[in-house]
Amino acid sequence: MDLDFISKLVKPGKTKIVMLVLDGLGGLPIKEGGLTELETAKTPNLDKLAEKSICGLQIPISDGISPGSGPGHLSFFGYDPIKYQVGRGVLAANGIDFDLKSIDVAARGNFCTVDENGNVLDRRAGRISTDVNQQLCKKLCDNIEIPGVEIFIETIKEHRFLLVIRGEDLSAELYDTDPQAIGKKPHEPKLKKIGFNKTIDIVKSFIDQAGKILSENYPANMVLLRGFSKKPDWPLFPDIFGLKSGAISAYPMYRGLAKLIGMNLLETGQTIEGEFTTLEKNWNDYDFFFLHIKKTDSYGEDGNFYSKVKIIEEVDGLIPRLMNLNPDVIVITGDHSTPSFLKIHSWHPVPTLIYSKYCRPDNVKNFDEKSCITGGLGPRLPAVQIMPIAMANALRLEKFGA
Amino acid sequence: MDLDFISKLVKPGKTKIVMLVLDGLGGLPIKEGGLTELETAKTPNLDKLAEKSICGLQIPISDGISPGSGPGHLSFFGYDPIKYQVGRGVLAANGIDFDLKSIDVAARGNFCTVDENGNVLDRRAGRISTDVNQQLCKKLCDNIEIPGVEIFIETIKEHRFLLVIRGEDLSAELYDTDPQAIGKKPHEPKLKKIGFNKTIDIVKSFIDQAGKILSENYPANMVLLRGFSKKPDWPLFPDIFGLKSGAISAYPMYRGLAKLIGMNLLETGQTIEGEFTTLEKNWNDYDFFFLHIKKTDSYGEDGNFYSKVKIIEEVDGLIPRLMNLNPDVIVITGDHSTPSFLKIHSWHPVPTLIYSKYCRPDNVKNFDEKSCITGGLGPRLPAVQIMPIAMANALRLEKFGA
Repeated sequence: MDLDFISKLVKPGKTKIVMLVLDGLGGLPIKEGGLTELETAKTPNLDKLAEKSICGLQIPISDGISPGSGPGHLSFFGYDPIKYQVGRGVLAANGIDFDLKSIDVAARGNFCTVDENGNVLDRRAGRISTDVNQQLCKKLCDNIEIPGVEIFIETIKEHRFLLVIRGEDLSAELYDTDPQAIGKKPHEPKLKKIGFNKTIDIVKSFIDQAGKILSENYPANMVLLRGFSKKPDWPLFPDIFGLKSGAISAYPMYRGLAKLIGMNLLETGQTIEGEFTTLEKNWNDYDFFFLHIKKTDSYGEDGNFYSKVKIIEEVDGLIPRLMNLNPDVIVITGDHSTPSFLKIHSWHPVPTLIYSKYCRPDNVKNFDEKSCITGGLGPRLPAVQIMPIAMANALRLEKFGA
Repeated sequence: MDLDFISKLVKPGKTKIVMLVLDGLGGLPIKEGGLTELETAKTPNLDKLAEKSICGLQIPISDGISPGSGPGHLSFFGYDPIKYQVGRGVLAANGIDFDLKSIDVAARGNFCTVDENGNVLDRRAGRISTDVNQQLCKKLCDNIEIPGVEIFIETIKEHRFLLVIRGEDLSAELYDTDPQAIGKKPHEPKLKKIGFNKTIDIVKSFIDQAGKILSENYPANMVLLRGFSKKPDWPLFPDIFGLKSGAISAYPMYRGLAKLIGMNLLETGQTIEGEFTTLEKNWNDYDFFFLHIKKTDSYGEDGNFYSKVKIIEEVDGLIPRLMNLNPDVIVITGDHSTPSFLKIHSWHPVPTLIYSKYCRPDNVKNFDEKSCITGGLGPRLPAVQIMPIAMANALRLEKFGA
């Protein structure tokens, strides 16, 4: 799917599209011949909607590939997730609403524990509290000085922080310093390409100073850096599709991603019900809503089959409130599967439903993995194709060719 | 499927993958409304396995394309068969375990019959016996002399031999001399590109000398050459996927192909049962097994519907021995269809099953063409996608992206 191709066909409209994303939606049976989480859940409202919809299973990246959250989302927003890759540093900055400039280099930091020889004992410093993190970030900010650049050090959560270096002619083409293993020293900062850039010296200086300042703060006595990256220069979602777009998510990572592609972040609480209230409150002000449900994934990663089932049922119970808004197009999908049987993001195709008055329903009568196999979207729809189908159903695409 | 992309995601593991290939597996009914060979065969074990597997039909090259054996196999090993093309000469060399060097030019030769004017009467010299072939190859070896290069002439089988020219600065960009028709003279050796390379003179000299030496050996009184080629510089299967790989095949062509992509060739007999015994004997020493069954294709090409059915049933009877080994992932497929109704390799999609504890079974309960259409792999899975799915099911791929 070529963003340039599709954006040339976009025409204005008054129709509204809701993309409801249940993170990690797809699952697996926990015993042979059993049912998945979604097959187990009682979902009368989703099933009723599936009957009026076109259904299928989507593949976020490519067959067999388990997506991270970033690429898993980008794909159903229409961005080829292999072409549009974004670093962890930028995602972290966006997640905490840090106003990243185009000259900035961002990295995701961990406070960690090292022994007297500098070998990593714990990559997460025993998951220190967010309070302690805030104290340490302030201490680093107050004491670190590097000539010629501005340094920002911001708390994310627990052991995680954001490092931003602001200055001219910086490079983000650096390897991680995180050795991803214990018993090893952190890697020295190093460019991915042969050559030299002053960013190397700046990052070395930051690490040296941080090590000295933190030396008395066991277990958080060192830092590890990952995902050096600059704000990408991508086409923005509202521009590509001509949709005023609002994002509803309780979690920083997904807010960050939505902001990165130009969506407005809508204020919302931590509950699913609160997210639906946010949708209702903002209904008149947007053409497109991204409504993100996190806990299907969290419980999947915890291996908690029945709590994942309960979250799906909770969402199902809120579907009538969505229907009352009378959206022109509804997409329901996930960014990947997270089977509680595996406790990780997996490669399994993700159940997907697209509803509109014009969708030409198939024979699928239940919204679940097995039923979706024989749906009109097929069992292997590339997720990047979802937005064009949604746009077509919203009558927001011109005919191609004479 | 990009081999470079996938190989970056590969992680080590202890899981084992078996790829059981029934050559020419797919078929056609011989009368309207009838059953295919696979639908006719009684396959209780394959059906039981299909019920626990994800099933579908795969397309080796592209819709409508009938694959040769080389590309048909390369695709399910993950190699784009249009990008990775290999000459018949190289395949022939590999098939008889000839140790081809990177400077060598290899060609597949036929002993043939020509009349007094040099026109081809029989492209296969009446399929002379392998014994006669060996005598003729020795005679050619003993008498042909071409300055500056080494010449190897090796018996393959019946009328087929291998020619290898070893020397510096040789080109393999030559057209076949085989006119592929009777009543015509063999083609003169000719470069595919405009220009000159000394290989032309060497090949001409070889053909002239061979013609003289063989003149009294009617019906084998001339040679035809095809598929001039050099050993390709491809990434090797065990390196791409991080799998110690063993190939079990009774037939030279498939052994050659497996060797070409870096698999170890395992000693095996000529029977199917013997191939399963080889699998059992080598079970502990490999991560990946390619187990090749030839006769489904041979009987298909002979137009022998019921013998093809019998071979499928014979393989079905050996499935319990495969299951007893408790493989983590099983792939069962073919390199193409060979319907006995057509007696040739055909373009029809090939029934495919992928089993693992994590495969998310679909509704398919029988392993055959019609049942596989509604499987979770869909009716048109590109065969190059099979390895990524198998690797994912073996838990041997990292997540893509943060």
